[in-house]
Amino acid sequence: MDTPTATTGATTPSDLPADLAIVNCTALLSTSGERAEFAPGTTITIRDGRILAVDTSPAGIPAAAEIIDAGGMVAMPGLINTHCHAAMTYFRGAAEDVDVDAWFNDYVWPMEVNLTERDVYLGTMVAAAEMIQAGVTTFADHYFYMEQAAAAVQESGLRANLGSAFFSSQGAEGIEQSVAFAEAWNGKANGRITTSVAPHAPYTVNDAHLALAAAEAKRLGVKVHIHTSEDIAQAHKSIASRGITPVEVMEITGCLDAGAIIAHGNGIMESDLPLLARHADRVGVTHGPKGYLKFALGPITPIRSLMNVGVPVGYCTDGAASNNTMDILESMRITAILQKQLNEDARWFTSTMALEMAGPSSAAVLGMQHELGVLRAGALADVILVDVGGFHCQPVHDLAAALVYSVQPTDVRTTIVNGNVLMRDRELLTIDRQALLDEFRARAREITDRSHGRSIQDYQAH
Amino acid sequence: MDTPTATTGATTPSDLPADLAIVNCTALLSTSGERAEFAPGTTITIRDGRILAVDTSPAGIPAAAEIIDAGGMVAMPGLINTHCHAAMTYFRGAAEDVDVDAWFNDYVWPMEVNLTERDVYLGTMVAAAEMIQAGVTTFADHYFYMEQAAAAVQESGLRANLGSAFFSSQGAEGIEQSVAFAEAWNGKANGRITTSVAPHAPYTVNDAHLALAAAEAKRLGVKVHIHTSEDIAQAHKSIASRGITPVEVMEITGCLDAGAIIAHGNGIMESDLPLLARHADRVGVTHGPKGYLKFALGPITPIRSLMNVGVPVGYCTDGAASNNTMDILESMRITAILQKQLNEDARWFTSTMALEMAGPSSAAVLGMQHELGVLRAGALADVILVDVGGFHCQPVHDLAAALVYSVQPTDVRTTIVNGNVLMRDRELLTIDRQALLDEFRARAREITDRSHGRSIQDYQAH
Repeated sequence: MDTPTATTGATTPSDLPADLAIVNCTALLSTSGERAEFAPGTTITIRDGRILAVDTSPAGIPAAAEIIDAGGMVAMPGLINTHCHAAMTYFRGAAEDVDVDAWFNDYVWPMEVNLTERDVYLGTMVAAAEMIQAGVTTFADHYFYMEQAAAAVQESGLRANLGSAFFSSQGAEGIEQSVAFAEAWNGKANGRITTSVAPHAPYTVNDAHLALAAAEAKRLGVKVHIHTSEDIAQAHKSIASRGITPVEVMEITGCLDAGAIIAHGNGIMESDLPLLARHADRVGVTHGPKGYLKFALGPITPIRSLMNVGVPVGYCTDGAASNNTMDILESMRITAILQKQLNEDARWFTSTMALEMAGPSSAAVLGMQHELGVLRAGALADVILVDVGGFHCQPVHDLAAALVYSVQPTDVRTTIVNGNVLMRDRELLTIDRQALLDEFRARAREITDRSHGRSIQDYQAH
Repeated sequence: MDTPTATTGATTPSDLPADLAIVNCTALLSTSGERAEFAPGTTITIRDGRILAVDTSPAGIPAAAEIIDAGGMVAMPGLINTHCHAAMTYFRGAAEDVDVDAWFNDYVWPMEVNLTERDVYLGTMVAAAEMIQAGVTTFADHYFYMEQAAAAVQESGLRANLGSAFFSSQGAEGIEQSVAFAEAWNGKANGRITTSVAPHAPYTVNDAHLALAAAEAKRLGVKVHIHTSEDIAQAHKSIASRGITPVEVMEITGCLDAGAIIAHGNGIMESDLPLLARHADRVGVTHGPKGYLKFALGPITPIRSLMNVGVPVGYCTDGAASNNTMDILESMRITAILQKQLNEDARWFTSTMALEMAGPSSAAVLGMQHELGVLRAGALADVILVDVGGFHCQPVHDLAAALVYSVQPTDVRTTIVNGNVLMRDRELLTIDRQALLDEFRARAREITDRSHGRSIQDYQAH
């Protein structure tokens, strides 16, 4: 999809020193061909939040305010979490071994009644810490009290696409705050924050609100981030109640035309594919199989069919209340093994394809395919350094396979976003671990209280 | 399956001080009920390689030669890898994105021609290091040059069940060396080594050799460790060529009666279940789903059916050439999500059941259900300490879920086998990391050479 423009020689666009230079790394240059291309001995220079050059034959150490020696490390694009509910780290492990209906009605929606604005800040910060530690540099978040999530993004240094969720049960107020948030926060935090308009789902948001969301997203130049055809049961219910699939609802309300981040699409049907294909330049699907299997959802996102018609698919974790972790390496690994099995083809979904989905494809789901997911001059400087020297990666006969099938989150030694080092050799630089965990834990028990008998929504209502 | 006999008060069977005491841990006491039982503030004392007491209400710090403060840690039984080919770490990543036939014929069997005795030692040592780091304390190994694997077990301090593989194509020599190894090494390394007789599979070993293997295993009081019905294709081929399933071959040759470790059983059929059930006290099935999905094997081990008839199933990793890692936490996690999906029941295969399979069930597969897989007075002292304080585990609403769905291998801080500390706070105490990796890597390229055109066996032959 994207061709790397690796430069040779120590040429930089100007004579100013770089802000940061990563030297001696093995750089992941491209995943668009048959086999991932890696270049050893590479220098990556960064200035003003962007990659200046990826120099595979450096003449020496470049002039830079900071130099990171990445000997023995793989430099790769920061990982992208295309759909989550970051603050739901608060509910990690609080709704286990239950089906989707019980998960929503008996656990999550009653528990979400308890969330304060501060809780959303704390939960998002914990998610941010976990993601930085696992090499995730961008996340698309779909939740409530999103000013608090934005504060966590500003403070943690991560990049995020933020959407303030709404239900039609909230009346006009719901959609208005979602649009107002998208308008107010787009481009904030030195551009690290982008936004979406975020209707919850076609079964909780009516067509008029979906149409308005689409129109407002278009006006603002942002996407509609929404749950659609999360499982086949939702698709069947939509057909039974109104004769069309949830994706067709997205089409007739203008959401596909506006551009959409679709979570999770396990219920996407054959007949939906042409519709999605027609909007492949602006619509993408997010995929987080750990939670789908855990929920025993049945059919899984038809990734091969979507790829065949050019619709980008990216990895996600969803919220920690269903996925338990915010680990995109894990999403990638489970996707890779599952895709081989589901397509009955051990030769398909190669490690290179798995990495292509992590980089350019996940970036495309967020509409940032020229900015993120690639190590290339001009791209945003979101880079992670991964140590493949551990016993569990050795020997490295196939570096792509090591990244997909062997590395552990703790092998991510350094995480850089927008040219800023957020974690250096496993040390978090923007988050005070103990203070955050102390405050976070103090509220954990209270936040799972369901004795009040209230709920923010009813799942059977759709 | 096993009831913990937690003692209260600082009573130990004798007045001698313990060799080792683990204090302040949260101990996993039982997984046999509806919900796993954990006891905070517990002291575990160890002497002569066995657990003296699991004291949930300790009066103070016990007398012990060594004390480990496990504050904030979960103490659980060391993990058990019920089937692997440890030395195949050498081929990690060397046969990627290929189907089973190509994997054997074009890659692994040609590469195995290159293996020297020293290579098996080195490959097994690397596997041992990786397993100790991931909390695996026992592994069942099925490979060649097993004296070298035994040396790696002795040196690393791990516990292992070792079987020297043979094909009928080797003639009488094959089975003779397998039996001789089983006889010579059973009980060695202070009892840490037990053995099996190890025919490769019913499709590479004839009935006469299987019958002899069964008889010899019975004579020695060890098991037959064998690949059987690895996938449904093997079962279908067996039925087509001789009218019975591979499990029925095991029955008529006496292998089930002798007791068997069956890898991997994905092709176990409905009609096999009564046969297996009749030998449930001595036969178990090993399960490593990462590799099965990666190979797109189709049907997966019918764990629910096996459990229903009382046949124990344990986790395994198989070799790193197919599974890429030797990580039982990963095998457990993938098994848990996959079992929910395959059984279309999000409420089944709870975290507690996943842990029960890691402990008592995996121990039973090796015939060691009263020795391993439980923290209980009298059991062998194989214990791991797991830190659940990381962001990715917090908050801990459900400790069993944290262990199954959130922990990372690096959360295993300390690994104890037979009362000996093999890793303390992530530091390997029995393995010289750099020296081992240096020698291991030096041979890695040579070992994957396939230009000689030879092979140790032909997979299509069955």
